[in-house]
Amino acid sequence: MIDRILGVLGGMGPLASAHFMTRLTLLTPASIDQEHIPAVLWSDPRVPDRGKALRGGTDPLAALCRAIDGLQDAGCGAIAMPCNTAHGWFDKMQAHAKVPILHIADAAAAELRKIAAPGSRVGILGTAATLQMRLYQTHLGALGWETIEPSDQDMAEFVTPAIALVKANRLRDSFAPVAQALENLARRGAQAVVLGCTELPLAVQSGPVERLTIPLVDTIDALALAAIAWARGTAPSDQTATRIGSA
Amino acid sequence: MIDRILGVLGGMGPLASAHFMTRLTLLTPASIDQEHIPAVLWSDPRVPDRGKALRGGTDPLAALCRAIDGLQDAGCGAIAMPCNTAHGWFDKMQAHAKVPILHIADAAAAELRKIAAPGSRVGILGTAATLQMRLYQTHLGALGWETIEPSDQDMAEFVTPAIALVKANRLRDSFAPVAQALENLARRGAQAVVLGCTELPLAVQSGPVERLTIPLVDTIDALALAAIAWARGTAPSDQTATRIGSA
Repeated sequence: MIDRILGVLGGMGPLASAHFMTRLTLLTPASIDQEHIPAVLWSDPRVPDRGKALRGGTDPLAALCRAIDGLQDAGCGAIAMPCNTAHGWFDKMQAHAKVPILHIADAAAAELRKIAAPGSRVGILGTAATLQMRLYQTHLGALGWETIEPSDQDMAEFVTPAIALVKANRLRDSFAPVAQALENLARRGAQAVVLGCTELPLAVQSGPVERLTIPLVDTIDALALAAIAWARGTAPSDQTATRIGSA
Repeated sequence: MIDRILGVLGGMGPLASAHFMTRLTLLTPASIDQEHIPAVLWSDPRVPDRGKALRGGTDPLAALCRAIDGLQDAGCGAIAMPCNTAHGWFDKMQAHAKVPILHIADAAAAELRKIAAPGSRVGILGTAATLQMRLYQTHLGALGWETIEPSDQDMAEFVTPAIALVKANRLRDSFAPVAQALENLARRGAQAVVLGCTELPLAVQSGPVERLTIPLVDTIDALALAAIAWARGTAPSDQTATRIGSA
């Protein structure tokens, strides 16, 4: 029986954090309820919009710190946050927290290493806010990968609309634009693509994934695997995040 | 913006409660994060097995009450529990709680009313423990429906194996046995069937649902709709739970 309690700081958006809970469950080696990981999901969709905050809107830090306090009060020993953009506040959140917060880019790097060696070129997809804050470019660049991003036109035509369609529960319509953005990154030499937004894996899974030839890192799965390794007190396991489409 | 915080007492099993969070999100009329319902999911798979408790095993009440306390401390104003068998402890839990617990059978009755008038015959599927505790037979009987259950042979051959297959993540294999149990209830005159187990809707959705002709009540969806109505401060809405297969 696992006695470490995982805190999940979610609600950004709520569908992505529900999906994280599903993946956390399915990726845990368990055959009965009692072998699964105790977790508290704090799903607060009222957290001020992270993208808007970067453009001068309300700062979400106070709401994020309230969630941290709530998860700590509930007995959680570590926190996972299935929202890439919110990692822009990671350092301030970690300074506030008494427990470790598992960084989603560290988790993604561990998975990326399995499919594309450092030194190779990898594409980064994400919200405009995540790309502007250079979350993955900085982390993966420091670890030796060369990162590329969609053009401004691809962001406007394909990536931003796909994310909005997932948030509006229009999953089926979200596949085609994300597939086009992936194809364009592959044409520019990307050996793999990191889906640096928790909505994008949902978009990819909503269509004929067998048509996508470029290997992908699902950051929701990567974070779930890092959380499972923490809860079980093991080093990051050799278990591989389910590749998109094989779920 | 919705300020009522929903508590979700989950982890029994964890896949069912993650699925509940997904359905809660998809059934909420919302187009941006901030229109969704704030929720705290307490997913504690360590709660002693409810079926075993009914056969003389460890009583889960203390663990259930700890979860209630945790959800109340987190500011939750009502609690939904996406596990039918655990409703056998409902009265003691409600006596302990300071906030209302939304009863899954009340939620199911509200949905059943839309497809089968009181007075008609309805089938009840569930774990052996749920059927033995007569959760739905008592509630729906008091509201005027005539309830029937699978034969002992159908329980042993179809229903119990289907639930075990879902818990073991073998979703595809779980469809055929549940379809057979449904057909047998229809042959005995059931006008609709209540899937009184949080695993069964997952089994039904894993196969060719268009072959099923009998109307079904998905108790996960029913409970999600009751929770949404509570959070929005509305009377139970006219929105209908997604029929199995139309998701």
